[in-house]
Amino acid sequence: MKIAVDAMGGDFAPQNVIGGVKMALVAYPAITRLFLVGDEARVKAEVQSQRLPSAKLEIVHAPEVVEMGESAAKAVRRKKHSSINVATDLVKSGDAEAVVSAGHTGAAVTAATLKLRNLPGVERAGIASPLPNEHGVCNLIDAGANLDRRPIQLLQYGIMGSVYARHVGGVKNPRVGLMSVGTEDDKGTDFTKEVFALLKASHLNFIGNIEGHDLFESPVDVVVCDGFVGNVVLKSCEATAKAMFKWLKHEIKSTPIRTLGALLSKGAFKAVKNRSSYEAYGGSPLLGTNGVCIIAHGSSSALAMKNALRVAAESIQHRVNPHIEEEIARSLAAP
Amino acid sequence: MKIAVDAMGGDFAPQNVIGGVKMALVAYPAITRLFLVGDEARVKAEVQSQRLPSAKLEIVHAPEVVEMGESAAKAVRRKKHSSINVATDLVKSGDAEAVVSAGHTGAAVTAATLKLRNLPGVERAGIASPLPNEHGVCNLIDAGANLDRRPIQLLQYGIMGSVYARHVGGVKNPRVGLMSVGTEDDKGTDFTKEVFALLKASHLNFIGNIEGHDLFESPVDVVVCDGFVGNVVLKSCEATAKAMFKWLKHEIKSTPIRTLGALLSKGAFKAVKNRSSYEAYGGSPLLGTNGVCIIAHGSSSALAMKNALRVAAESIQHRVNPHIEEEIARSLAAP
Repeated sequence: MKIAVDAMGGDFAPQNVIGGVKMALVAYPAITRLFLVGDEARVKAEVQSQRLPSAKLEIVHAPEVVEMGESAAKAVRRKKHSSINVATDLVKSGDAEAVVSAGHTGAAVTAATLKLRNLPGVERAGIASPLPNEHGVCNLIDAGANLDRRPIQLLQYGIMGSVYARHVGGVKNPRVGLMSVGTEDDKGTDFTKEVFALLKASHLNFIGNIEGHDLFESPVDVVVCDGFVGNVVLKSCEATAKAMFKWLKHEIKSTPIRTLGALLSKGAFKAVKNRSSYEAYGGSPLLGTNGVCIIAHGSSSALAMKNALRVAAESIQHRVNPHIEEEIARSLAAP
Repeated sequence: MKIAVDAMGGDFAPQNVIGGVKMALVAYPAITRLFLVGDEARVKAEVQSQRLPSAKLEIVHAPEVVEMGESAAKAVRRKKHSSINVATDLVKSGDAEAVVSAGHTGAAVTAATLKLRNLPGVERAGIASPLPNEHGVCNLIDAGANLDRRPIQLLQYGIMGSVYARHVGGVKNPRVGLMSVGTEDDKGTDFTKEVFALLKASHLNFIGNIEGHDLFESPVDVVVCDGFVGNVVLKSCEATAKAMFKWLKHEIKSTPIRTLGALLSKGAFKAVKNRSSYEAYGGSPLLGTNGVCIIAHGSSSALAMKNALRVAAESIQHRVNPHIEEEIARSLAAP
């Protein structure tokens, strides 16, 4: 298994990227070749400093980096030798089977879309973002790869999300829900009602409209929405969790007794933080492009990067893309 | 000040409604007349059981109730004598200046829209939902009154939300943000970009695009979005907070030491729960209709109902609607 990693992507690159690679090489022996793409001198120094075994590594020089504030489309077109472009090129050329990046999400999506193209029949690729819930993980798709919205795109998100939940998540018959403003069948906008009809007519295990609380409480495996809604929901959920912890910390620190109490129950806070953290999930697959592309969180730790590499390896191993191709063809052939 | 209350609205009606009314009559002497609209026998029994002073009260019989699962449009049209219809009629006839309901949100919005009509120049009414943040309260508008979306409607939400934040929230020059997928000016869909241009050209204190984390961390007073997005965001934030507390509780209960610790820091949990609870905010105003309409949470406690009545009283006192009319006229007259 050959994976290209954007060594310069993320707030703590290349340090955390290399740290994650080190852990992944030990944990996932199926990874036989790992391309570290970025500024050669900096990557080499980090590899040496963290003492990575060199057998499976190959450093590929890329002198440019797409910065977080840049326009994705412009940066991908102009910075030909940026780490995300060079890493994606390795997938295009067949040298690697997957690309992993914690850098500029828009740039990673644009590079993958332009260079790898979509799988046959796929209108738009979508990011499937894992959200922990009471029953395991719910995949929110699209989390912001595509700001267009046509009903068929959301049907295809449902199909691709299902394939991913089944083959990587190990869910037998993934339940697909449609994000809406009420659970009754007739709730929603004209747009979501059209999507509802498509999902209902499909071969998917469609459970109908879902609302915010279903994200965490219902046994739903795939939640479909357009990229604008998905991105806003995801960031709002993340922000709420962060605010809750911050406010709790502030309140706890306001008296010595509360501080003592919190010390005793520290393990509980840690457990919930771990459970709700993206670290454990590591990466969100961009589903629909002809080559595996995993988007990691910008502030990824080494552990998060390790898990993003796991997601890449599992996507290759379980042949997510061939399965998507098959299911999309089946859906397009349906009467 | 004369207010009509839907005594049958909400999961714990009429008990909590009457409980809230009792508290409000003590706290807000400016309320001179309070219409309790609902099943006369049940309301009377509750009023007697909770020993409400009768001087300012008037029970108005309404034999029907709009149930939570019903279609709003159908229910409002067919159940002429439902509590929400009769309560809204009291505002239409001028007997009351505001209606407050914790019942079916869609029905309350439909009744207000059909019976009271919009203020001159207002295209669509929007629900301004208060979200507590680090700097006070941020009003998310529209939280789901209107599932249509035209750019001018969102400009008007900004105007109406600003008026509300200024005159009821006491914010001098309310900052208005546009919910989007990135903070840069060029981020968003074609739709949000059109809204961006309108907001930027307006006389509002527009601070640009905002993201999820800004809801809690930025000093933004009004966040504008379409009703679908607002509803989904609001419910997702509420669901995240609920899930965090539930998971924490579960983890805390798993060992005796953690349980003891949590007992010691109990006050901190309570403080954050209070801060993040809708109880303290009580109600979300439906802005733009010709008559004050306050939507309370379906599971409102007596305290939440009391605060919903406060919001109604303050909206009347600070002449929110005449101010909205003025500002909308000013915006429509702008070159």
